Amino acid sequence: MSQGFKPVTTRPQEIEDLSFQMITEELGTHPFTEEQFPVVQRVIHASADFELGRSLLFHPRAVQAGVEAIRKGRPIVADVQMVQVGISKPRIEQFGGGVRVYISDSDVVEEAKRLGTTRAIVSMRKAVREAEGGIFAIGNAPTALLELIRLVKEGTARPGLIVGVPVGFVSAAESKEELAKLDIPFITNQGRKGGSPTAVAAVNALSLLAVKG
Amino acid sequence: MSQGFKPVTTRPQEIEDLSFQMITEELGTHPFTEEQFPVVQRVIHASADFELGRSLLFHPRAVQAGVEAIRKGRPIVADVQMVQVGISKPRIEQFGGGVRVYISDSDVVEEAKRLGTTRAIVSMRKAVREAEGGIFAIGNAPTALLELIRLVKEGTARPGLIVGVPVGFVSAAESKEELAKLDIPFITNQGRKGGSPTAVAAVNALSLLAVKG
Repeated sequence: MSQGFKPVTTRPQEIEDLSFQMITEELGTHPFTEEQFPVVQRVIHASADFELGRSLLFHPRAVQAGVEAIRKGRPIVADVQMVQVGISKPRIEQFGGGVRVYISDSDVVEEAKRLGTTRAIVSMRKAVREAEGGIFAIGNAPTALLELIRLVKEGTARPGLIVGVPVGFVSAAESKEELAKLDIPFITNQGRKGGSPTAVAAVNALSLLAVKG
Repeated sequence: MSQGFKPVTTRPQEIEDLSFQMITEELGTHPFTEEQFPVVQRVIHASADFELGRSLLFHPRAVQAGVEAIRKGRPIVADVQMVQVGISKPRIEQFGGGVRVYISDSDVVEEAKRLGTTRAIVSMRKAVREAEGGIFAIGNAPTALLELIRLVKEGTARPGLIVGVPVGFVSAAESKEELAKLDIPFITNQGRKGGSPTAVAAVNALSLLAVKG
């Protein structure tokens, strides 16, 4: 057998520790608070993208609100299944919470057809009815985020925290600009980048903070 | 209700068409063949990252091999659940294929514990026994990709195509350099970036080509 590259380590915790050390060193000076930094680190860890990490924007109460929502066992709503499966469950479940996704529910699919709109939009309407005070993690659909913002503005939705980081070329950056105008807890980023791993990384960083205390 | 941003369109197909048009225009000149370009476009679409798109590397037979594997109903192996759920199923299933993930199988978990190694490594050993000629889509674990490369070199693994795009700071770039040395069909990229959405986008682009062909 030919000799190939040998990794420094194959132990997951060692890989993560070494990665976080590299991220801290390479990032250098940054505008984030001590409380926000673990979220930024984990987003960079999931993307290997410092530009994406630096583009993150936090409402002043965002991290605290996210940690509190998890500790109170409030539900986490994922916009798509990729976000749902990526979020680490044990740390959420130990506080009585869980991770929900509504976009493929049969009533959502039917309602979207009936109204001639997207499943993403209808799933947010269902989510705000069923997950008050929860964390809304939106990594994919700008239309879902825009609908959630609309529901917040009209007073129908009272999320504990919105993690709004959809990726894309059409409406993604604009939807995040709208989110950043709200005075409720949010984590978002400037520009087109983001996506499911960004949403997952932010929530996983928050649940780690919830456990560490 | 206050007036917010109004998206150009909320129709998924229109959003995608408009996005692809923007990607083609902004990318400008590029080194990819006509056959490879739909994969590049879809990776940029999923990441909003032109640098990531430009970093893609294709074995000369990669796209053809991927399309053939899908048309023959060969299995697609995902390294993690985020890749498994992200891959569009109807176009795979119409040819008799499916998308498998082994990393949480109880026998994989037990074997990894017994050997003191990672589930990612053990899951690849199981996958090569059960998915000969299939597409291996690795978006997360460099250790999985390195193990798959080892199994190819020793003659145990005969994948139809390896989509090897793990993201990360430790061993990810190196594992992809090793993959690019093999003379079997692969799609990979240079550097640290990549991840589940990249693997998903590449496979979804291939299944679209398989259907259109």
